[in-house]
Amino acid sequence: MKPINLDYLSANPLLPEVQEAMIAAIRANLGNPSSPHQVGDQAAETLEKARESMARLINSPSPQEIIFTSGGTESINQAIKGVALANTKKGKHIITSNIEHNAVLRTIRRLRMMDFKVTSVSVDENGRVNPADIAKAITEETILVTVMHSNNEIGTLQPIEEIARITREQKIPFHCDAVTSVGVVPVDVQRLGVDLLSFSANQFYGPSGVGGLYIRSGTSLWPLLDGGVQENNKRAGTENLIGIIGLGVAAESAVREMESRNHHCLRLKKKLIQGLKNHIEDIFINGHPELSLPNLVSVSIRYIEGEGIVLMLDEEKILVSTRSACAAGALQASHVLLAINRDFADAQGTLVITFGKETTEADIDRFLLVLKNVVQTLRAMSPLYKK
Amino acid sequence: MKPINLDYLSANPLLPEVQEAMIAAIRANLGNPSSPHQVGDQAAETLEKARESMARLINSPSPQEIIFTSGGTESINQAIKGVALANTKKGKHIITSNIEHNAVLRTIRRLRMMDFKVTSVSVDENGRVNPADIAKAITEETILVTVMHSNNEIGTLQPIEEIARITREQKIPFHCDAVTSVGVVPVDVQRLGVDLLSFSANQFYGPSGVGGLYIRSGTSLWPLLDGGVQENNKRAGTENLIGIIGLGVAAESAVREMESRNHHCLRLKKKLIQGLKNHIEDIFINGHPELSLPNLVSVSIRYIEGEGIVLMLDEEKILVSTRSACAAGALQASHVLLAINRDFADAQGTLVITFGKETTEADIDRFLLVLKNVVQTLRAMSPLYKK
Repeated sequence: MKPINLDYLSANPLLPEVQEAMIAAIRANLGNPSSPHQVGDQAAETLEKARESMARLINSPSPQEIIFTSGGTESINQAIKGVALANTKKGKHIITSNIEHNAVLRTIRRLRMMDFKVTSVSVDENGRVNPADIAKAITEETILVTVMHSNNEIGTLQPIEEIARITREQKIPFHCDAVTSVGVVPVDVQRLGVDLLSFSANQFYGPSGVGGLYIRSGTSLWPLLDGGVQENNKRAGTENLIGIIGLGVAAESAVREMESRNHHCLRLKKKLIQGLKNHIEDIFINGHPELSLPNLVSVSIRYIEGEGIVLMLDEEKILVSTRSACAAGALQASHVLLAINRDFADAQGTLVITFGKETTEADIDRFLLVLKNVVQTLRAMSPLYKK
Repeated sequence: MKPINLDYLSANPLLPEVQEAMIAAIRANLGNPSSPHQVGDQAAETLEKARESMARLINSPSPQEIIFTSGGTESINQAIKGVALANTKKGKHIITSNIEHNAVLRTIRRLRMMDFKVTSVSVDENGRVNPADIAKAITEETILVTVMHSNNEIGTLQPIEEIARITREQKIPFHCDAVTSVGVVPVDVQRLGVDLLSFSANQFYGPSGVGGLYIRSGTSLWPLLDGGVQENNKRAGTENLIGIIGLGVAAESAVREMESRNHHCLRLKKKLIQGLKNHIEDIFINGHPELSLPNLVSVSIRYIEGEGIVLMLDEEKILVSTRSACAAGALQASHVLLAINRDFADAQGTLVITFGKETTEADIDRFLLVLKNVVQTLRAMSPLYKK
């Protein structure tokens, strides 16, 4: 039996057209886009075509405002460290939220070791930042605001446009980690008004280990990777052209299919949440009830441990996660769930269920049935559960 | 007619077995190595298998001392910035040579902007560093020595073992940029005695945009990419697994074929140098006559411009380069050629000819014939040439 993938966040399947484009690129033995001969020129054209496709997906005014990177984590590190280090003379204060991805949190923790000061704004019980809190946190020393577009554990969307209005007025660079949003929900850098925006190809059925960063023209930042003159002198190193070609094709498909994908996902999401409520007692659905990703459900199942559920579901060939794969090796309760006031025990009993194009209603039905049994079994063994 | 590729340095063709492995990986839709379920476990196994293959190629005592990166440039930035920033309390002095790759030079220039001091050791006319000069440059403040294994423009190999003996005695971390050596000539991190060593898959017929860094256990450095717990907590971000699989297979082939590849290349190199001397007057062969890469010839052709030669050869479908593709967009004379005492004009008239597995003697013959005509044509137009 084929596994049921309800862990799309960890690894989206590659679209068939992405696979074919990457395979063709492998067979074609493309050259180096920086080489000053015809083979290099062809490679450079391919690279710029992918950049144009990506620019359309996020409505970047010019493809040249996009650099390709090795993924969301590099983009986020590049944006935050790059802006921070380029602006030390202006100040060393950064504002963020307390539910950011580890790539943001740990990057900022690193900057703290270099004497940067950080204000971390709290979110409400649905995981939303209040833009007024950002405005209040701004000081003369503030050189960067970084807030995510959607949360990777609970799916809540943030009021990015409202925050950008504040940062633009104050002329402070604003980075948005949009890794779990780009290619999933509409993201328009011009409408949002952000200065930097990070994305990753695998969130929209492109390959892992490829992503990019939108950098509004005129934004001052240091490259994380110094060396050659690639990527408009902002990111040195010979490009992962095969991966970037996959990203480009995935971006084109996302533009074309976003509406139908989301229609499909929202139907599954509704069915899944209703099913969870019907089948299992003592649960919380986490995240904002409306302003959230269409392809993610976070559920806290009281009295039991998420890790145990994942293992038992795995034996039934159903893949889910307790949190982002990036944090799977870290043995702490999710900072996101604690931030929205789940207690430690409930945070540990949380599943993140993510799905997509290939997920069927039958997958959801089977998941609900198996989960019901797993929860019964685990609760029967749980000293916390008394019924 | 198929182009004759004498610009292997810019882009090695992918080995057929590398292509097949990457295509199989694309079709298999592998998971995320960090996911806590069976699909994730399989992906993690694949990742570790590639790491083991790479460890064999450079004789790393443990695969865990290798991290995968997005290529040589990231590895170099990670090594140099990582060690520098982790050791600021000990000192801020770095020692390097004056013929390093731009990824090293510009990384160090960046650190200068953060108040690091740098001693840049000169090379002799063959491009060799004198280890005694490194010893002399060491101060109480020195926290890093970085010298390349082989030069990407002239092919000269450096006395890395001798330098490492000095740095180990002084307990100073030593990074070696071995991008143009790993997979080409024997590189044994234990025998060399280095603490950090950068490499790139495309130099040994693996994909572009994938590489790695050997980090001797106990070496203190800050990650360039903070975030998730991947790569032994030293390099965050979901892996480019398809690329890493290609790297692993390429490493296995390099172990198996290195001797026969080099036998082939050395024969071509000898033929090429002899042919250049026979066909064209007023040339210099750059780099050390023996201690140099088997797959590279650098020739300065007096009175004419390298860029012009490259363009005219390109029309004849012969690919060569004037210098590394990374620097192709930079309109300055090569710092490497100036460092070995070529004057500005001769530096501008230099070709870097790199070749490999698929290059034939017939390719060399045709190149020599076409080059002879091109040089005649260009010299006839050159105001500098009077004969």
